[in-house]
Amino acid sequence: MDPNAEEPAPIVYIGQHESQREISVNSQLLGDAQSLGYDLLTAPITTTHFQSRVLAILADYVKLISESPLPDALPLPNISPLTPKDTDLSPEDSNSALIAVASSWIDLGSKDPLIAHISRQVFNAEVAYAAFVGISSILVQGPVQGSDVAQYSRAILEALSLGPYVQLHIVLPMTGELEMEGFDGEHLSELARKQYVVEEDEDDDGEPEPFGSWETWDTIRSVCSYSNKLTVALEVPRQLPFASIQSRWYSESIRLLLFPRTSFLRNAKGYPVLSKPHQQLFTRFLRLRFPPWLLLVDVDSIKPMEEAASGGAPLEPTPAESANSAEPQDPVSHLRYIRHLQQTQPSRPPMERFGQGYQDYIQSPLQPLTDNLESITYEVFEKDPVKYEWYERAVAAVLKDLRKKLGEQHEIVVAVVGAGRGPLVTRSLRASKSTGIPIRCCAVEKNPNAHVLIQRRNATDPLWNGQVLIYKSDMRAWPGPTVNGNVRQVDILVSELLGSFADNELSPECLDGVQHVLHPDHGINIPQSYSAHLTPIATPKLYSDLLTRPADDLWETPAVVMLHQYDDLCTIANASGERVPDVKEAWSFHHPIAPAILTHAFVRAGGASDAGGWTGGDGKNEHNVRSCKVSFKAQDRGVCHGLAGYFETVLYAPEDGSKKVELSTNPVMMKAKSEDMISWFPIFFPLKKPIFIPDEAEIEVSMWRQTDDRKVWYEWFVEVFAQGTKGKRMKVGGSELHSSKKNGCLM
Amino acid sequence: MDPNAEEPAPIVYIGQHESQREISVNSQLLGDAQSLGYDLLTAPITTTHFQSRVLAILADYVKLISESPLPDALPLPNISPLTPKDTDLSPEDSNSALIAVASSWIDLGSKDPLIAHISRQVFNAEVAYAAFVGISSILVQGPVQGSDVAQYSRAILEALSLGPYVQLHIVLPMTGELEMEGFDGEHLSELARKQYVVEEDEDDDGEPEPFGSWETWDTIRSVCSYSNKLTVALEVPRQLPFASIQSRWYSESIRLLLFPRTSFLRNAKGYPVLSKPHQQLFTRFLRLRFPPWLLLVDVDSIKPMEEAASGGAPLEPTPAESANSAEPQDPVSHLRYIRHLQQTQPSRPPMERFGQGYQDYIQSPLQPLTDNLESITYEVFEKDPVKYEWYERAVAAVLKDLRKKLGEQHEIVVAVVGAGRGPLVTRSLRASKSTGIPIRCCAVEKNPNAHVLIQRRNATDPLWNGQVLIYKSDMRAWPGPTVNGNVRQVDILVSELLGSFADNELSPECLDGVQHVLHPDHGINIPQSYSAHLTPIATPKLYSDLLTRPADDLWETPAVVMLHQYDDLCTIANASGERVPDVKEAWSFHHPIAPAILTHAFVRAGGASDAGGWTGGDGKNEHNVRSCKVSFKAQDRGVCHGLAGYFETVLYAPEDGSKKVELSTNPVMMKAKSEDMISWFPIFFPLKKPIFIPDEAEIEVSMWRQTDDRKVWYEWFVEVFAQGTKGKRMKVGGSELHSSKKNGCLM
Repeated sequence: MDPNAEEPAPIVYIGQHESQREISVNSQLLGDAQSLGYDLLTAPITTTHFQSRVLAILADYVKLISESPLPDALPLPNISPLTPKDTDLSPEDSNSALIAVASSWIDLGSKDPLIAHISRQVFNAEVAYAAFVGISSILVQGPVQGSDVAQYSRAILEALSLGPYVQLHIVLPMTGELEMEGFDGEHLSELARKQYVVEEDEDDDGEPEPFGSWETWDTIRSVCSYSNKLTVALEVPRQLPFASIQSRWYSESIRLLLFPRTSFLRNAKGYPVLSKPHQQLFTRFLRLRFPPWLLLVDVDSIKPMEEAASGGAPLEPTPAESANSAEPQDPVSHLRYIRHLQQTQPSRPPMERFGQGYQDYIQSPLQPLTDNLESITYEVFEKDPVKYEWYERAVAAVLKDLRKKLGEQHEIVVAVVGAGRGPLVTRSLRASKSTGIPIRCCAVEKNPNAHVLIQRRNATDPLWNGQVLIYKSDMRAWPGPTVNGNVRQVDILVSELLGSFADNELSPECLDGVQHVLHPDHGINIPQSYSAHLTPIATPKLYSDLLTRPADDLWETPAVVMLHQYDDLCTIANASGERVPDVKEAWSFHHPIAPAILTHAFVRAGGASDAGGWTGGDGKNEHNVRSCKVSFKAQDRGVCHGLAGYFETVLYAPEDGSKKVELSTNPVMMKAKSEDMISWFPIFFPLKKPIFIPDEAEIEVSMWRQTDDRKVWYEWFVEVFAQGTKGKRMKVGGSELHSSKKNGCLM
Repeated sequence: MDPNAEEPAPIVYIGQHESQREISVNSQLLGDAQSLGYDLLTAPITTTHFQSRVLAILADYVKLISESPLPDALPLPNISPLTPKDTDLSPEDSNSALIAVASSWIDLGSKDPLIAHISRQVFNAEVAYAAFVGISSILVQGPVQGSDVAQYSRAILEALSLGPYVQLHIVLPMTGELEMEGFDGEHLSELARKQYVVEEDEDDDGEPEPFGSWETWDTIRSVCSYSNKLTVALEVPRQLPFASIQSRWYSESIRLLLFPRTSFLRNAKGYPVLSKPHQQLFTRFLRLRFPPWLLLVDVDSIKPMEEAASGGAPLEPTPAESANSAEPQDPVSHLRYIRHLQQTQPSRPPMERFGQGYQDYIQSPLQPLTDNLESITYEVFEKDPVKYEWYERAVAAVLKDLRKKLGEQHEIVVAVVGAGRGPLVTRSLRASKSTGIPIRCCAVEKNPNAHVLIQRRNATDPLWNGQVLIYKSDMRAWPGPTVNGNVRQVDILVSELLGSFADNELSPECLDGVQHVLHPDHGINIPQSYSAHLTPIATPKLYSDLLTRPADDLWETPAVVMLHQYDDLCTIANASGERVPDVKEAWSFHHPIAPAILTHAFVRAGGASDAGGWTGGDGKNEHNVRSCKVSFKAQDRGVCHGLAGYFETVLYAPEDGSKKVELSTNPVMMKAKSEDMISWFPIFFPLKKPIFIPDEAEIEVSMWRQTDDRKVWYEWFVEVFAQGTKGKRMKVGGSELHSSKKNGCLM
């Protein structure tokens, strides 16, 4: 968790795939490949012998039905069991380094029942045999153009049940069609067409949808209930598609990145390299908590060692290769380049280093008001390179403004409420020192354990110098500091009570509760205000993670997560033309609040002033209720799995109008306001059921911060509207009302 | 359950509502209304005194903020507790006959936080007080034009929690706006607007959507999770909207039908009557298992008895009334007319009489193959006025055809397999008698209890005359009849194994299993074929019913239900131009099946012939696997809660091409093929999550009949596509893949 620790090179497993491997893969060939530096090899599950046998069965059947007066009276053909000639695979210890390749000449979603029947038999036999010999990773071609995706998906779902460890990786292009060979080649329908007339696809001949390949994947994984045994083997094409398509795939469950020959360029020396955009894509995927394996396709042809020495038949050169006549002799030049990239990855930003291992890991928000934190928790947060620095600046700015207002005679009282182990006390004292404005500093902490530490620190830290007034108290019950026998009013009330969604750790309620100690005329809160922000996201990873957990409540509990593998559904162009997420404000809080509102809350607490009391409280906290309705515009189709929440806060806005001291976790503002701050991960409001979002849809989010005087909770509700014919707005979907009332924050 | 039983007049509770009731409702007035024949009266929860008080609080507040330099520093106003002057209601035994009316001058969904704040306080105070005095039924105005439906819905959700017995009835128009007064009158925003400027609604000025009012309701009840404490109080307008809108409302949870003054016509004698379409609507709703209450609005003004004698101020006449000068003196002429309608309801069709009490009641499909039925179950089915008659016709037609083919010398062997208590034996013998073609009749029954009865019947029934050969056996293990020491082949195999979705009680598997006894050349099955049919429906009633049940499996189990309160989402015009549901065929089965297929199945059962065996079976029943993809077009927006399933069967198609003998539960074909047949209710395939269907959307249903040699189950998957801009087809939603595998039918 130390953001300053040295970073090792990421671990990457790299495999090699040949669409037409001429020799069978055995443990020796694998050993050869591994000694060249590859980790994995692909191996077809069945042989061409098997394919010929299946085609012969098909041919016999076609002959039979064409000669039969009653073709319907014939049973559909069966593929007889695999023979040793049908497969080169056997159970071997080395099989864990193999990726099996299911036959790609079948068509699981064929609209022709005969083809679909044969295809499913072939596929099931192959998956079952691969599982039997201990190969759990299986590369499977995506749906053939024109076949039924629902049928295809159901066949995949069935195959997932064929073994407890079966992992299917569906080979898909990022957009349009695959560039590489072997996964879109001649398929069973075409082979059959030569022998009898298969119903032609009534093809949609329109231009391909940029998100068509993604939508296919969405259907497959939806039918398979987001099974974690089902992932994508994504082809990286020569020309990368729009950033929005790349981002979408980045958020999906990608087990393998396939780099075909065409994805490589040649550098001046004739060595294979990746373009800058490809390198960026590579880097991005490598930073995932579980990076995909890489599969180099039809490059670095692996020969048995003895043969390699005599030089195998070279692959036909690509145009880029032909352009450069000086073909290097390194037999694994592609692998070597990728390993080089791996070793020279740029270092991660501090937040990612800090959060290493926490990416997309769901945590419950802290409840510091009801739970006492442990020292290590404080320690982690104290490492933030930005946050406390900014607090020090804010205190210094307030000190200057107050000195101007109150004159030198007034001893400024600074109270740090919720002092923890005292970092803000130190910062306040430093601000006093740097500005030369003396302060009387107090520290209030309810955690009896942390209280021990701040007393010790007061005694030992020369900056504290035994001068800090230390109180063990819930801030809401603290009467204020006593100086020379008199209770003094506080001039600056410093707190760090914000949660990932600003108010979700009850900062408003705590600060209301301690406001009575603040000087009513000139008292200042640091922070002065804060706001909650949100945007709809696609995050299949978190959705499938929540699916595997037993507790039902999880769907109605906002979670703290270092969001990593997700996609923003709604983006806007920023000033420099980049697409950034469209993060919108839900609501805000300001401190101190108007005394009349506090008084009113106090009166309501008695239950005398109003007709309330219906939903469990007297309404004493009703002034901290908030609600919003925020509308977002999606560009591209997608699936909404929930809302990402962030916050912004103004620690202090100097009275001379100079730059505000602000913190922000809002990805759009963070860089400008508090770059490299690491103390907060975003919050995530999940949706029980993912909602499909059509192209250019509007996403309307209604959200509430509710309270019943005992606790605070959130409610959220999402509606989706699309543009119908003639641009007419029409509802197309919506969520349930989600409520975290059961898991609300106790006041 | 006897379809021939006498039918009592339906029970209807009728209430009276006055938008401006000038006297307070107490038990005496209620007694007077009841002595006039009304069952229920409405009573406002709060008085005009309360309204004035709230408006004064609002006015004070508005004055305060307009004079304040810091309006944000003022707490929002509270409504102080109800005083005795604020309400006329008290706890009374008679309160159970009252419907409380919440104030309709508030605006719960107001976009103005002040108005929303006051409105929610007023509403919560009223609902809580009504619950306190023991009135659980509360009439609530729908969302005010221009207010936020999500906010409104959340306020309703909150109010539902104010008492365990609270029932909220949302007053809504069928389409467009309400006709009656009192629920769309001057509301708080307008009242406030006179005092300070409330943000004007940025109104959508487009033409009103015909299904707009329904869509509002859909949002409210979705936010409230289909709570069964939330229902509609639906206004019946003078001019009824399209049949499709009426049907939609019919499928919703309507607790009250409101008949305003304008919904009545005057007959020649000046008495209030309903138009024919209104009467039909009335009849339709009265046939629900739990018919709504009726509320007559602003008619039959109820006065205290002494005052009534001296004649109250007459209501201003409607145009229809003015047109007819001879106003009758009957003070409750509207009630009297409705009671008359109630007494003279047309009798129900046989299916409804038979199914009385079973409407929308979810049953598990029978599993006659694994469970032994009880005598009463047989008895119920034997009452069908159509089914056995049609079987007799079919046997007679087959006898004639076979006689022609085989000549008089051949003794025709008829085997009734699954004979139960013997109704088909009797029908076969009658067919023999009526055609004069002698038969040798056998009865095969596996149920040992039913076997007792058929033996007794053989001994006592003169028609049977001890001549029926009776076998106690599972038909699949029956070797065929032995006549004079020789095993004879069966000429006609009669069975009644169909379930609501044709093949769902394993008729195909049973008939395959007994086919070995059938004469291979001329043997005939009755039925010869059958097919499964389906159509998407909206059925909030079944959805909310399933929601209240604990078992998760229910969402993945097709249920037998007498579908009643539902709406067809996809309709087509039939030959006479009526809209009928678009019921489409999923698949079909024919008997006998080709011998080659049976042989093949037998060989597969040994596991020798194919590579299968992956999903739990050897594939011996794979020829009974089916799948389909069926596309439907919706006209109007709606919500799909599942699929209604039906069947059709050809008992026999005579060889001369004369009319086939058919049975059908398909609502489109039933009248033509087997009107008044009562033996089968439809089947219902639920969806876990309702899917919103935009106007003119396509609903694509993928469905599978699966088998693993041990059991048979169904899988279903729904996708929705709408027309985007430029008519481009776009996906807008979809279901999970549902599977009844866990609750499959055991073979």
